[in-house]
Amino acid sequence: MSLPGETMAHTIRQKEKLMARVRRLKGQLDGVEKALAAEVACGEVLRQLASIRGAVSGLTAELMEDHLRGHVLHADSETDRREGAEEMIEVIRTYLK
Amino acid sequence: MSLPGETMAHTIRQKEKLMARVRRLKGQLDGVEKALAAEVACGEVLRQLASIRGAVSGLTAELMEDHLRGHVLHADSETDRREGAEEMIEVIRTYLK
Amino acid sequence: MSLPGETMAHTIRQKEKLMARVRRLKGQLDGVEKALAAEVACGEVLRQLASIRGAVSGLTAELMEDHLRGHVLHADSETDRREGAEEMIEVIRTYLK
Amino acid sequence: MSLPGETMAHTIRQKEKLMARVRRLKGQLDGVEKALAAEVACGEVLRQLASIRGAVSGLTAELMEDHLRGHVLHADSETDRREGAEEMIEVIRTYLK
Repeated sequence: MSLPGETMAHTIRQKEKLMARVRRLKGQLDGVEKALAAEVACGEVLRQLASIRGAVSGLTAELMEDHLRGHVLHADSETDRREGAEEMIEVIRTYLK
Repeated sequence: MSLPGETMAHTIRQKEKLMARVRRLKGQLDGVEKALAAEVACGEVLRQLASIRGAVSGLTAELMEDHLRGHVLHADSETDRREGAEEMIEVIRTYLK
Repeated sequence: MSLPGETMAHTIRQKEKLMARVRRLKGQLDGVEKALAAEVACGEVLRQLASIRGAVSGLTAELMEDHLRGHVLHADSETDRREGAEEMIEVIRTYLK
Repeated sequence: MSLPGETMAHTIRQKEKLMARVRRLKGQLDGVEKALAAEVACGEVLRQLASIRGAVSGLTAELMEDHLRGHVLHADSETDRREGAEEMIEVIRTYLK
C-alpha cells in the first residue's frame, strides 16, 4: 500500500519517539536517585516511582501497538504474520501472568 | 485451512473453558464474602484477593490471545483484520494505562 | 480513644460496605459469563474484565487501608502492631512481586 | 530499643542499597535504548520492559516496607505515626487505583 520510503521514514520517526521516552524515563530515575540521596520523604519518592511505573506501562503499550501494526497487521507474509502474532501472545502472557 | 465444523467445535470448547474460569472466579469471590462475614484475618482475605487478581489477569491474557488468533491472525478479510487489530490496540491501551 | 461500642459499629458498617463491593464484583462476573455465552465481541468482554480488575484493585486498597488503620495505627498493643505491620509487608510483597 | 548510631548506620546501608537498585534500573533502560537504536526485535525489547516493570514494582515494595517500618511501626511519636500511616494510605490508593 505505502511506498517503502514512506514506511522507513515512519519507522525512523517512531523509533526516535520511543528512544526519547526511554531517555525521559532515565531522567525520572535520576530524580529518584537524587531524592534518595537527599533523603526526601518516602511518600514523595513513592509518588515518583508510581509515575515511573505508569511511564513504563505506557511505553510497553506503545511498543505492543507498533508490533501489532508492523508485524501482524501489515506483516510481509503469512509466515511473518504468524510469527509476529506468536511473539505478541508470548509477551501478553509474560505481562499478564 | 480448517473446515468450518472444526472451527466451530474449537470455538465452543474454548468458550466453555472461558466460562468455567469465570465461574471459578465467582467461587473465589464467594470465599472472600464468607471470609469477610466470618471476620477472618485481613491478611488472609488480602491473599485471596491477590489470587483473584491473578486469575482475572490470566483470563484477560487468554481472551486477548483468542482475539488475536481469531480476529487478527485468522480474520476472514483484510477489513476484519484491521478492525480486530484496532480493537486489540484499544484494549491494550485501556489495560496498560 | 473511642468507645468500644463506636468502634464495633464502625467495623460492622465497614464490613457490610466491603461485602457489598464483593457482591457487586460477582454481579460483574455474571455479566462476563452472559457475554461469553451470548458470544458478545471480545473487545466488549475485555473492557468488562479491565473494569473488574480495577474493582479488585480498589477493594484490595480499601482492605489494606482498613488493615493499616485497625491493626497497625490503632493496634491494641505493641506486639499486635508489630504483627499487623509484618502481615502488611507480606501482602505488599505478594502484591508487588 | 536500638542506639541512634546503629539506626543511622542501618539507614545509610539501606539508602545505598536502594540507590544501587535505581542505578541498575537505569542500566536496564540503557539496554532498552540501545536495543531500540539497533532495531532489535520488538519481542526482545518488550521482554526487557517487562523485567524493568518488575524491578520498579520490587523497588516500590522495598520502599513501602521501609516506610512502614520507619515511619509507622517505629515512629517517634503518635503524631508521626498517624502522618506516616496517612502517607502510606495515599500511596496505596495511587498505586492500586
